[in-house]
Formats: sequence, C-alpha cells, structure tokens
Amino acid sequence: MAITYLDNSATTPVCQKAAEVAVELMQNTFGNPASVHNLGFEAEQAVDTARNTVAKALGAQKDEITFTSGGTEGNNLAVLGGAMALKRVGNKIITTAVEHPSVLEAVKELENRGFEAIYLPVNKQGVISLDDLEQAVDQKTVLVSVMLVNNETGAIQPVEKIRQIVINKQSPALIHTDCVQAFGKLPFTVKDLQVDLLTVSGHKIHAPKGVGALYIRKGVRILPQTYGGSQENGLRSGTVATAQIGALAAAVAEMPNGKIAVEQATLLKNQLLDGIASLDGVIVNSPQNGSPFITNLSVPGVPSEVMIRALEADEVYVSGGSACAKGARSHVLTAQGVSPKAIDSALRVSFSHHTTQEDIERFVSAFANACRILHRKR
Amino acid sequence: MAITYLDNSATTPVCQKAAEVAVELMQNTFGNPASVHNLGFEAEQAVDTARNTVAKALGAQKDEITFTSGGTEGNNLAVLGGAMALKRVGNKIITTAVEHPSVLEAVKELENRGFEAIYLPVNKQGVISLDDLEQAVDQKTVLVSVMLVNNETGAIQPVEKIRQIVINKQSPALIHTDCVQAFGKLPFTVKDLQVDLLTVSGHKIHAPKGVGALYIRKGVRILPQTYGGSQENGLRSGTVATAQIGALAAAVAEMPNGKIAVEQATLLKNQLLDGIASLDGVIVNSPQNGSPFITNLSVPGVPSEVMIRALEADEVYVSGGSACAKGARSHVLTAQGVSPKAIDSALRVSFSHHTTQEDIERFVSAFANACRILHRKR
Repeated sequence: MAITYLDNSATTPVCQKAAEVAVELMQNTFGNPASVHNLGFEAEQAVDTARNTVAKALGAQKDEITFTSGGTEGNNLAVLGGAMALKRVGNKIITTAVEHPSVLEAVKELENRGFEAIYLPVNKQGVISLDDLEQAVDQKTVLVSVMLVNNETGAIQPVEKIRQIVINKQSPALIHTDCVQAFGKLPFTVKDLQVDLLTVSGHKIHAPKGVGALYIRKGVRILPQTYGGSQENGLRSGTVATAQIGALAAAVAEMPNGKIAVEQATLLKNQLLDGIASLDGVIVNSPQNGSPFITNLSVPGVPSEVMIRALEADEVYVSGGSACAKGARSHVLTAQGVSPKAIDSALRVSFSHHTTQEDIERFVSAFANACRILHRKR
Repeated sequence: MAITYLDNSATTPVCQKAAEVAVELMQNTFGNPASVHNLGFEAEQAVDTARNTVAKALGAQKDEITFTSGGTEGNNLAVLGGAMALKRVGNKIITTAVEHPSVLEAVKELENRGFEAIYLPVNKQGVISLDDLEQAVDQKTVLVSVMLVNNETGAIQPVEKIRQIVINKQSPALIHTDCVQAFGKLPFTVKDLQVDLLTVSGHKIHAPKGVGALYIRKGVRILPQTYGGSQENGLRSGTVATAQIGALAAAVAEMPNGKIAVEQATLLKNQLLDGIASLDGVIVNSPQNGSPFITNLSVPGVPSEVMIRALEADEVYVSGGSACAKGARSHVLTAQGVSPKAIDSALRVSFSHHTTQEDIERFVSAFANACRILHRKR
C-alpha cells in the first residue's frame, strides 16, 4: 500500500521530471554558468530558461527573478535587504504576528539594528485588520511584510490591498509577501498582489529542498546579504546552483493552473471536513475561506505527537503545526486566540496537487480510529 | 570523442554515485528532517550519516559540521559570523590579498561595519610572509582568514603555522581557512591545520553546485547569518537540503586518499609542464610547490579568451583565472606581481582525481597548436 502523505506544507517528494532535469544538469550540462567557454554558456542558458519559466508563473519578467537557496534565504534577503536599503529613509517595519520564522526572526534582527517593528495582530480567522495596517503605515515605514497564505492554518491575508494603503499614507515602504505556501496553489500574479518583493520555495511544489526564488520588482533596489562573486546580478553571490534551479523550473512547469488547483483542493478539503464532522471533540482551527490546501485541526486532550504517531502506524503522515517550529508552541495559533490545550493537540493536514480522494479517505478512516482509541485512553 | 575538461577548479561534473543518492533523497527519503514523523526521522538519519562522512574526511567530529549552500555561504558565515561574535573583543581582521571574493567581500563588509582589515601581501610565489602575519596579529585581532590553496594559482599558504603565532601574540583571534580548492586534493585534517573554522564546497569535488560545509571547532561560537527556523543547531536556518547533502557525502566518500591524490596529480602536472616546456613565450604563474591540481600559465600577447576559444574548438576546456571574477583583471596575479600583459593572457588548467594522462596529452597538443596559430597571427 502506498503511504498517505498529507504533510505537503512541510515538504513534498520531488516529481519525476524535476529529478530528471536535476540529473541532466548534474552530469551533462554541468558547467559553471560563470565560465567563459561553451560548457559555461550551456549552463547559463539552462539557468536562463529556468528563470523565464519561474518568471512566467509569477507574471513577472525574467530579470525580476533572483534564485536563492530556499524560502528562508528569500525571506531574509527581502526583509533585511529591503529594509537596509532604505535605512536612511526610515526605521519602521510592519509585519504580522503570524509570519514564518524566516520573516519574524529577520525582523527581530532589524530591531537589534535599531529598527522599530510592529507585529499586526490577527482575528479568530487568523487574518489581519486593514484598519490596523492603515494606522501603522507612515512615512517612516520602509517595509511591510505580510504573507499570502499562512503555513500553519492556510489563512489568506489581504496582500493585494496593501499597495493602496501605502500610497494613501504617502509611505516609501517596500511591500514584501512570503508566498511559499501560495505558489502553485492559489491563482495570483505579482501584478494582482502589487508587491515589490515576493518569495517562493522549491520543495513545497515538488522541486528539491535548497532552492527558491525571490521576485524583485524592476526598479526596486535591495542590498545583497551575501558577499562574493556577484552572481545573480550582484544580489546573491555563490556559484549558481544549476541542477537545483533547473529542477525548480521543471516542477513549476508542472504546477496546475491556480483556479483548477483551488477547485480540486476545495473538493478534497470538503471531503475531509465532511469525513470528520461526526467525530466528537474535534476543532477546526483553519478559517473557512483560507487556502484549501491546509486544514489545521485540534483534538484537545490528545497531544499532537501522540496523534501523529497513531496515524503514522497506519502510514498516514501529517504534522503538528510547522516543521520549522519543532518543540515550540505555535505562535500562529496563539495569535489567533486558540486555547493552549487546543494548540498542544494541533494537527496540520496539508495537500499538494498530487493529493487524491483516496488519500483523504485513508486519513479520515485512520483519524477516526485514532480518535476513538485515544479518547478512550484519556 | 570525450571532451577534455580541465576546468575542475571552476566546477566538476557530479559523479554517478552522488547523482544516485540525490535522486534517492529527492524521491524516496524525501521527508523534512524537522518533521516529527518517520519520514522526517529517516531524512534526518540520512543527513546525520552524511554529516559523519564529511566530518571524518576532515578529521572532525560530526557536531562540528554545519551544512551550507556552498563555499560562498560557508566563507561568509565564517568571516562575518566569526568577527561579529567577537566584536566586543576587538575590531581587527587579518586576511590576504589573494583570497577568494567570498572572503574578500565579506571582509570589506566588515570594514563597512567599523572593523579594520589588513590584507597581507604575497611574494612572487603567491605566498604570504609569516613575519608579516606575526607583525599584524595583536590582541585586538578577532579573525585571521587565510586560504589553504589559491583558486587561481594553486599556491599553498602556511595555514598550519598560524595557530602558534596567534598563541605567541596572546591574540583572541579565530582562525579560518578556505579549503574549497584543497578538499579532496591535499592531505590535511582540521587538527593538522589547527584552525577554528574551515570551509569546503561540494561542486569542486564532483558533488552538485549549491551545497557545502563549514567546520566549526567545538567550543567556538559564531553568529548565524540567516534567521528563521534555527536548523543546523541554530547556525543556518532553512529547510535542510537533504538531497544536496547526501550527494555531497557520496562524493566525499569517493575522494581519493590525499597523499595518493597529490602523487597522481603531480605526475599529471609534470606531464603538462614537460609537454609545454619547448613552446616559446609561455610563462608559468603557479609556484613549483603549489597544489599539483592547478597550473596557471600565460602566453603574453594572446588574450585569455582567445586562447580559451581556440582550445574549445578542440573540445579542450580551461579557464582564464577564476570563474567568479568574470571580466575583472585577476587580483591574485596582480598581488603576485605578474605583469598586466601576462595577466590578460592567463589560463588556469585545473585537474580533478578523474583527470587522465590522455586529457593532458590532448591539452598539450591543442595548446601547442593554438600557440603556433595565435602567435603567427600577432
């Protein structure tokens, strides 16, 4: 029996095509793109083609894409590089209480460097208030960083509304959005969102771990955070990781159309919610109108890890919140006002476009069974 | 006919075993090492095994190895992270005029942050003077960063002598060495070199581009340069790139014994030097006692790129200095006192342990032919 893998927001298996492209670039088109000779040129061409593929998927231009070693590097580069480039203009950063650690910790580093940070609260649905944002943005604000889809709950923030607020308040702020959990799942372009900086990661969309991309809107200047050979137009020194980048583009090329992806995932999410509706004592922490790819549940009294192990025995894999916050109590659910008891039993069930109805059936069956056994044990 | 690839200091093709391991970790053992469930644990175990392999190759312990996205990130983390951790102790950095840009530019960034930097000069053989170093080191020195093998000429620095000088001068300095061009080529351990920080890269040793490791001696504290989920013991946030790391370890496992590697490469280097000895107007810029894997030559009057193209026509691939300094005149050869005319015609011929006598024969033949034709044209 195949495993039932519903931890796609933590990571995904690399798709066949991406693995094939990676091997081709590792062994045949193996030159250093910075080399003058043909082998270098061929590698550079492969990277150029990949850059075009990623740009198109975001509705961006090729030279607006900087390849990174993943979502964390992308978020760090956007937040630190964006704020530091404007430090003479102002010292205020606005973000949310529910960002990924790679944004939150970068903002904390900026606080250490003398910036003032505002962490916008969220409501019970995990969403910020635009009024709060409007109150916070001013002419000293140099960066607004708000994620599109929350990695623990799937809550969607109104990123596309930020530009007008920044304009209204005559703020010089750059707008950044972490789209690691939105890319390949929701339909959006950089023009829809009207952002300056946008982060995506490979390993959430069936590309390898250790590669990602940062969109930097043409005309926007940020400061590099790595120093060396000035690759990636000076923004990201280090030999360009051709095989990783080619594999990223191959996975991007296989992403479904965003609207179709949402429709299919919504069917699966409804199947999941219907399947668990009759179970006693299960709380859904995800908002109704969030990304259908992520459903956060709690079974208060059953610690997350106990449930994860019970499901694992049936080869069903989910997580307890984010894989990046192993051990700590979720700051996302805390910000949403979820009770500590519910947080300690939180489970994240997350889909990719490879998830099937059969996967959901298996999850519901294993989860119902585990709830029965574990509730009885209490 | 197979190509004659003698640009191994720029990058290498990924070996079969490393590619196989990468694919296995991309598609089967694909979990996020930070995940609580079995799939995460299996991935973590794979990374743990890889860490052990890399540690052993360096004579280090497993928990002294931090995986990075490559040599540039490793050098940046060592230089910035090392100096910033000691900024209350002192503000002086000592390095050399011939380091890789990923060290030099990181040191320049430290100068922007208020540190004082000394760039030790080199002699005609490209080697620093230990007297100069001794004069420079003081109680305000927090970092000494000296590469083991120069990436353009193969010159070997007396890294193993630095510790005694630091001790003699009662300096708190951390000692870092960039071993990107030495790893898998010269016999050394972290104990031989007596350093605190040591950088290696994957793609110079037949692992993929975009992965490397930094040795951090037990007890040495440096500051992370990325902020997020605190992976790699808090030193390098970002999802651990399992397939890249597994491939790195697979390539490390196939590295020859250092002494045997040197013997074989020395035979090839002698074959190369004998082969070109009778050619008019060829200058050897590499020192006699440098790494046998790198030979830097000049044919004054024939620009590097012209020679590279001529050789390329015979499917022989070399470079004109470093791939990381495309376009700029070599700072390494300049520091060595090589004439601008000779620098503009510099060629780097670089081996890996896969290089054969036949490769050298083909190079010598193509090079002799190109010299005849290009000299006549002048």
